[in-house]
Amino acid sequence: MANESILVIGGGPAGLEAARGIAGLGYKAILVEKRGQLGGTPDASGYAALTPDMRDAGEAMGEMVAAVENNSNVEIWLNTTVTGSEGSLGAFKVKVRKDGKDEVIDTGAVIICTGFTHFDPGRETQKYGYYEHDDVITLVDAEKLLKDGNFVRPSNGEAPKRVCFIQCVGSRDRQIGNEYCSKVCCGISSKQAIEIREMVPDCKVFIFYIDMRMYGFWENEIYWPAQEKFKVNYIKGIATEIIKKGDSLIVKGEDTTMRRPMEVPMDIVILAVGMEPSEGTKTVADIFGVTKNKYNFIETTGGALNTVSTNVEGVFAAGACTGPADLEDTISAAGSAVMKSIVSVRKITVPA
Amino acid sequence: MANESILVIGGGPAGLEAARGIAGLGYKAILVEKRGQLGGTPDASGYAALTPDMRDAGEAMGEMVAAVENNSNVEIWLNTTVTGSEGSLGAFKVKVRKDGKDEVIDTGAVIICTGFTHFDPGRETQKYGYYEHDDVITLVDAEKLLKDGNFVRPSNGEAPKRVCFIQCVGSRDRQIGNEYCSKVCCGISSKQAIEIREMVPDCKVFIFYIDMRMYGFWENEIYWPAQEKFKVNYIKGIATEIIKKGDSLIVKGEDTTMRRPMEVPMDIVILAVGMEPSEGTKTVADIFGVTKNKYNFIETTGGALNTVSTNVEGVFAAGACTGPADLEDTISAAGSAVMKSIVSVRKITVPA
Repeated sequence: MANESILVIGGGPAGLEAARGIAGLGYKAILVEKRGQLGGTPDASGYAALTPDMRDAGEAMGEMVAAVENNSNVEIWLNTTVTGSEGSLGAFKVKVRKDGKDEVIDTGAVIICTGFTHFDPGRETQKYGYYEHDDVITLVDAEKLLKDGNFVRPSNGEAPKRVCFIQCVGSRDRQIGNEYCSKVCCGISSKQAIEIREMVPDCKVFIFYIDMRMYGFWENEIYWPAQEKFKVNYIKGIATEIIKKGDSLIVKGEDTTMRRPMEVPMDIVILAVGMEPSEGTKTVADIFGVTKNKYNFIETTGGALNTVSTNVEGVFAAGACTGPADLEDTISAAGSAVMKSIVSVRKITVPA
Repeated sequence: MANESILVIGGGPAGLEAARGIAGLGYKAILVEKRGQLGGTPDASGYAALTPDMRDAGEAMGEMVAAVENNSNVEIWLNTTVTGSEGSLGAFKVKVRKDGKDEVIDTGAVIICTGFTHFDPGRETQKYGYYEHDDVITLVDAEKLLKDGNFVRPSNGEAPKRVCFIQCVGSRDRQIGNEYCSKVCCGISSKQAIEIREMVPDCKVFIFYIDMRMYGFWENEIYWPAQEKFKVNYIKGIATEIIKKGDSLIVKGEDTTMRRPMEVPMDIVILAVGMEPSEGTKTVADIFGVTKNKYNFIETTGGALNTVSTNVEGVFAAGACTGPADLEDTISAAGSAVMKSIVSVRKITVPA
């Protein structure tokens, strides 16, 4: 008789959706989270509102957390990291460390939901001076200012008159080694641009981009309103350098549509940083012997027709640990991983 | 005691994935398909290869079909259309017509997987002369030529020397009423461009685009190789008219990066037609009282954190019937719909 419980590693959107689903299907979910609380990156990074529906992120994640906390089929392990694994489908023995103490969790299958980390713009793109200029911030920093309802210049606490976003920081970049597109930054930047225009109506907002990847309904739900209703200025252009001049930042680069150099003053520059695999994703993948792609995201097998299976039978992955993913991708993939993980343990326990 | 079977409407990628999953979890799937065979649009439209992994579409769909055909938990109804519905979660009575005969299917919940239809470029975009010029074709027509391994000019059967794609035909277009982006056309065009370059090495291939929406790994898996290895020419530009001149087609428009008018001869012009809801999607939505959005796709509720629930309890939707979706979206959503539909019927049958 195989163990029919499913171990879910990571308590962000993917992990919470997976644990709730497993429990709802009548199986036992064991949810392991390295932090002292659930909610994942939206909680840890203090997101203001979700993309594209602009729902309050704290409220949305709170509901997801409540659904697993008040659930007798979900066993929650906080402050817990995975340190090793033995066994195989139907009989994994997963070693964890909780509060400095080693324990073993028996489980039939595993869903890795260890997510991503935001690209550090100080790592390789010194040209933008993230660690040099107070008013050069990232999408994550901007999200915090928006959450606090106080979108001001970090340098002096004043309301900005001119704000710009620079897209593709840490993405689509061979020099950095991240050739992939991070998928969500165009949408999140546009969402933030709208929020800034609502919060600081006098402020002009610019977005410098290569391609605006507002796929599907993001086009009509965010991109068109951003331009038509909120008067966000989209400029196809490349920013090559940011310098400080008096009280202002000067963004230098090229407007590729107008085919001329640009040199524009800004009060705040927001770097649209992309996604990289989290440390947890790399560590956990190695522990389970799961193949990573060249960018260290977990490689799923089966091409377009299987978004969650890995090379290891009984080990699945969902959400941004497998590559750039929006929330819809993440939630859908979590559902698929629940289905496939339970099917895989049932194959052992239920006679064909 | 509620009925615990799940009715899946539509036998394409979403429906096949859903039916297999339901069965794998030990529940009964009832799969209804209006055509005489399973496989959905990839089969009906004769797709050559899947995007992005370029797997043979016939082989891939064949495997999905086999998984439900040889499954004692899946009941398949071909040549069957849904004509009415009564009841509610746990006790739907769904009327169907099979081979001219009316029947009633009892089911606990429903997953709508009725997909999309390709935009008809003759409907409103007369400027491209789809029904006038033999060598103006669509992505669907091109896919058939590629599948046959014989990519030639329809007008004379000769190998083309110059082929171009025009993006966003029927998408991002207020005049037509489709403001949304169809999400997959950039990827499929790039995939076909590569296939054309492989099949007809002497042929130059151009893609005229507004934004190349090669999100996530499509960027490094398709877009970069298309440019660097296969020398596909991407031109940010707008095609406004196609005229015939001698044996050639002349594409007129504006190169927006070079800021100059363009007038270029082509042997084949491929219109990258977008997605619209299928007739089945509209009909079935109305039968179940499911809300449609302004474009007549099925509206899912719950924003970014729920991709499959509708306004009707016990009725779910997965894949391109909910809006533009790539295969990964579709497969993931099908898994999520399986999970949520079974959870919903279990809530009635299993004491809390």
